[in-house]
Amino acid sequence: MPKVLAINAGSSSLKFQLFSMPEETVIAKGIVERIGFKDAIFSINFGGEKAKNVLSIPDHKMAVELLLEKLRSLGIIGSYNEIEGIGHRVVHGGETFSDSVLITDEVIRQIEDLADLAPLHNRANVTGIKAFKEILPDVPAVAVFDTAFHQTMPESSFLYSLPYEYYKNYRIRKYGFHGTSHKYVSLRAAELLGRPIEQLRLISCHLGNGSSICAIQGGKSIDTSMGFTPLEGIPMGTRSGNVDPAIIPYIMEKTGQTAEEVIEVLNKKSGLLALSGFSSDLRDIEEEAEKGNPRAELALEVFANSIHKYIGSYAARMNGVDAIIFTAGIGENSSVVRSRVLRGLEFMGVYWDPELNKTRGKEAFINYPFSPVKVLVIPTNEELMIARDVIRLTK
Amino acid sequence: MPKVLAINAGSSSLKFQLFSMPEETVIAKGIVERIGFKDAIFSINFGGEKAKNVLSIPDHKMAVELLLEKLRSLGIIGSYNEIEGIGHRVVHGGETFSDSVLITDEVIRQIEDLADLAPLHNRANVTGIKAFKEILPDVPAVAVFDTAFHQTMPESSFLYSLPYEYYKNYRIRKYGFHGTSHKYVSLRAAELLGRPIEQLRLISCHLGNGSSICAIQGGKSIDTSMGFTPLEGIPMGTRSGNVDPAIIPYIMEKTGQTAEEVIEVLNKKSGLLALSGFSSDLRDIEEEAEKGNPRAELALEVFANSIHKYIGSYAARMNGVDAIIFTAGIGENSSVVRSRVLRGLEFMGVYWDPELNKTRGKEAFINYPFSPVKVLVIPTNEELMIARDVIRLTK
Repeated sequence: MPKVLAINAGSSSLKFQLFSMPEETVIAKGIVERIGFKDAIFSINFGGEKAKNVLSIPDHKMAVELLLEKLRSLGIIGSYNEIEGIGHRVVHGGETFSDSVLITDEVIRQIEDLADLAPLHNRANVTGIKAFKEILPDVPAVAVFDTAFHQTMPESSFLYSLPYEYYKNYRIRKYGFHGTSHKYVSLRAAELLGRPIEQLRLISCHLGNGSSICAIQGGKSIDTSMGFTPLEGIPMGTRSGNVDPAIIPYIMEKTGQTAEEVIEVLNKKSGLLALSGFSSDLRDIEEEAEKGNPRAELALEVFANSIHKYIGSYAARMNGVDAIIFTAGIGENSSVVRSRVLRGLEFMGVYWDPELNKTRGKEAFINYPFSPVKVLVIPTNEELMIARDVIRLTK
Repeated sequence: MPKVLAINAGSSSLKFQLFSMPEETVIAKGIVERIGFKDAIFSINFGGEKAKNVLSIPDHKMAVELLLEKLRSLGIIGSYNEIEGIGHRVVHGGETFSDSVLITDEVIRQIEDLADLAPLHNRANVTGIKAFKEILPDVPAVAVFDTAFHQTMPESSFLYSLPYEYYKNYRIRKYGFHGTSHKYVSLRAAELLGRPIEQLRLISCHLGNGSSICAIQGGKSIDTSMGFTPLEGIPMGTRSGNVDPAIIPYIMEKTGQTAEEVIEVLNKKSGLLALSGFSSDLRDIEEEAEKGNPRAELALEVFANSIHKYIGSYAARMNGVDAIIFTAGIGENSSVVRSRVLRGLEFMGVYWDPELNKTRGKEAFINYPFSPVKVLVIPTNEELMIARDVIRLTK
């Protein structure tokens, strides 16, 4: 049976899932954390079992060696030859990559060249790619980009109203992120709706610690809420989302911070954390709101209202919508957020059932049967999309 | 007959309209330009006549003296006593002013205190107020704020998802502008619709060189596209509108500009000017788009699309809309922009008549009679609102 590894390398971590294809079953999954430290942690789940080791892992290459060795020693694979392909999540594909791609030296150079646009992420992703390449040089590897799905956006969606040379010379435009997730749930929604995706207008709400909304027409992203970076759009765990750009020099003047420092505040100390005043985790905020904490209530309201308005704007973009999709941690699990987002959309044909909305973490329709607009909860599966792309591009 | 002056003082200009109340007729109107220069220009229209003088006007006080002297010498008023009140447009009322106010020394201090939020505008407005106060100390004067109408916005609309101390200590929040215009057209729309404004959900599109959209529920602004400053929202003549805030340090790094300079580019060299590459004036852009200029076409598309999406989001905010209003230079005159904004809103009940849409610069319904959502063109009249507030607050 062909086995495929889906890899998500961060600066000090390596997440993995081993799939058996084409059945699309997960054989094993886990994470190596604190790479570069003496007390790094290797965790794996397989066949109902769990294993965990704390040990020194100096770099990503060692992490990969450890992972492969563990897969064999735990009897998950017989030999490395069983791994027929590796898929790497890469955050930024810029305008270079509008689809996943088989990794060559040239591709690695291109991904490094794009690091300017996503310094931390792309460099970490390349570290992961190179580590596997050294250890398994003959196993084909595929890069799957967070931005690729959004490369179908028209110029009128992706261009900012800024001097054109900023786009031409510095590549400043809207890229959008979470593309692999938006693509997965839109394909799955078409299956669940039993309709060809070419005929559908979908709004996908990927709501997690990072959140983005996407307008998908005929299977193609035509607009999305994240922009040049993941800071733009709706408020998130610690990100502000949209603010008046003129606020930045004003904060700089008032606080003496540099522009970089202000953007750091907008990325790390804003969003739900700033609104609630105590947590970036929506579960904490829901709990406190339930108890009557007014700041928690405010955070919930601003978050949901912002998503609600994006749904209205994307429905306008497509002259209506056939289905709204909720996915990722919050989208899959929070009936509170979903209900606040959905209430007051009857004008555009959204009628949802509070009973069905109680669902958590599994595929479900939560609209009333008579609702012209369907509402779906679909757990996302970026790793599976990565594994599928490995098969598609290596066969 | 009581006569009321409506004044809009800029840093080197003074616009005026003289109303006869309560008939609300304009007796005279004009502008003093290039105040502070030897070749300042005084222009006035009255009773079908026009007059224009080029002369040295060193400061606003001289401009006011000249204006009053002209009103008398041209026989427009018999004596200064006929002026029963003066209304001053003031850009920023912060959270201090949620309505127009009779001007006292304390009010002047408060307006000066708010100059931090709108340095150029508020200082110029105060200069105008003081000039009239010196020359006509006994005539009551009223300040009418661009921001006041939006003070009804709920916290969930006006708070950014930023650390709370930025709001508490530095007054950073969404204020919104064009309030006097949005208020005027919403009141007029209720009259034209023959329905109490308390029952109406309106979306007002003030589209001029500066543009903003406003959601008005029951006569109250509940959300608007401009923010802490007039830079936020849709692209305008030279303003970018919303961009990913993370772009600012990126541009700084690439171009060596300061944050202030980048914001200056976003305010003065972006928007329609940047998109088209040749003009900030929508009339030029329409003309070029007509000839097939692709950049002009792009500018039109981005501008209209952005308004179109705001309409969708504000309809979602109010669970539907009873009427959409177009006002200000572009809104009143451009059938091209209106048609591009309105097309593709049938999903929310907007059916508009291309024939009726050919109207320019006068009050008109442009929807089909059967359209659930009405669409109106209403020329704005901020000066009349100012004159009305003078009467309301001085009687």
